[in-house]
Amino acid sequence: MRLFWTPASPFVRKVMTVVHETGLADHVEIVPTVWPHEWATKTVAFDPAFVAANPVGRIPALVTESGVAICESNLICRYLAARAGRAELIPGDGDADLPLVRLWGLADGAIEAMIATRAESLRTGAERSADFIRKQMDRIGRCFDGFDLDVLGDARSPTIAHLAAAIACGYMDFRFPDERWRKKRQRLVNWYERFGQRPSMAMTRPGETPQQ
Amino acid sequence: MRLFWTPASPFVRKVMTVVHETGLADHVEIVPTVWPHEWATKTVAFDPAFVAANPVGRIPALVTESGVAICESNLICRYLAARAGRAELIPGDGDADLPLVRLWGLADGAIEAMIATRAESLRTGAERSADFIRKQMDRIGRCFDGFDLDVLGDARSPTIAHLAAAIACGYMDFRFPDERWRKKRQRLVNWYERFGQRPSMAMTRPGETPQQ
Repeated sequence: MRLFWTPASPFVRKVMTVVHETGLADHVEIVPTVWPHEWATKTVAFDPAFVAANPVGRIPALVTESGVAICESNLICRYLAARAGRAELIPGDGDADLPLVRLWGLADGAIEAMIATRAESLRTGAERSADFIRKQMDRIGRCFDGFDLDVLGDARSPTIAHLAAAIACGYMDFRFPDERWRKKRQRLVNWYERFGQRPSMAMTRPGETPQQ
Repeated sequence: MRLFWTPASPFVRKVMTVVHETGLADHVEIVPTVWPHEWATKTVAFDPAFVAANPVGRIPALVTESGVAICESNLICRYLAARAGRAELIPGDGDADLPLVRLWGLADGAIEAMIATRAESLRTGAERSADFIRKQMDRIGRCFDGFDLDVLGDARSPTIAHLAAAIACGYMDFRFPDERWRKKRQRLVNWYERFGQRPSMAMTRPGETPQQ
């Protein structure tokens, strides 16, 4: 399989943590992609293989061994978990797993808001909206406050919901350290400091995407 | 169950089509929400019950009978399909369903780009980026061109992937009629005109969200 990748993207990181959790690393070829900062408002020059794999024009994108590409991180993670026989990484669709499903949606919502903020910060001058950034930070704060620490701290095996929540925390540290998400969230901090030591998290810490 | 709703949102429409396809309409109370146009860049005044249900602060949000709310449309649809014993509405996680999973990601990607465009169009003056709107329209065009008509036209029962693709077409007509998505896409048009007659589609045609 081939994974279109950058070291910065939290949605790529979600897929990579699942790659490591499932032991599939030897089966996934990492294909770095380049994102000039104008991606925030413009269609950038895409590698033809990348845009053919993912017409949405974003990462992650996974080209499977059968050649059919998957264009969205949760759908990629679900495929990888099933392929590895590790379906328990994905919360179930019944009432018993509702707290995990709620956490999953909140964590993804927070990450989406972070990406939107990053894109906004890359806009030029007058096109940049301080209001918009504030709106997204409000949203992220509400999501973090909504993380159920009893669910996160559950001793059973981790799921994509746990991974997404930890990745959300890590991306705040990476891109928005001045936002001080740790303030008044000591239980979340304690959980994150411990969960972040998992090999799948430690091996996927974010770094800047090369500009060319 | 309670569903926070508007008549305009394509992600709400996706949930509503699944509500109708599964025959769960009598079990879901529709809770209209109000979105002043400044939602595009500002945190608007939320109904406390809504933001408690969904700290991400967006629709759709489903409060289940156990009181645990789900915050994202695909997770809501998955829950409803399972609850109704209609798991076949959700593409499977194995290789056999990869073409459907690909379609699902492309359709959702197109809808996300439409929402981003709608939000951009609601920005004021200098904060509005014509480049950004062009970028999203490029993305939508690529996604539509990537829809596999052999998959869409398959005579088996429809899935959330089919519904999302049809909703993407419908939202283009609703918000962006000048974009002429039908041009040079006759097979997609033919499919949409037929699929759009399903009761679940006909009963959920979009309308403007009241401003207050």
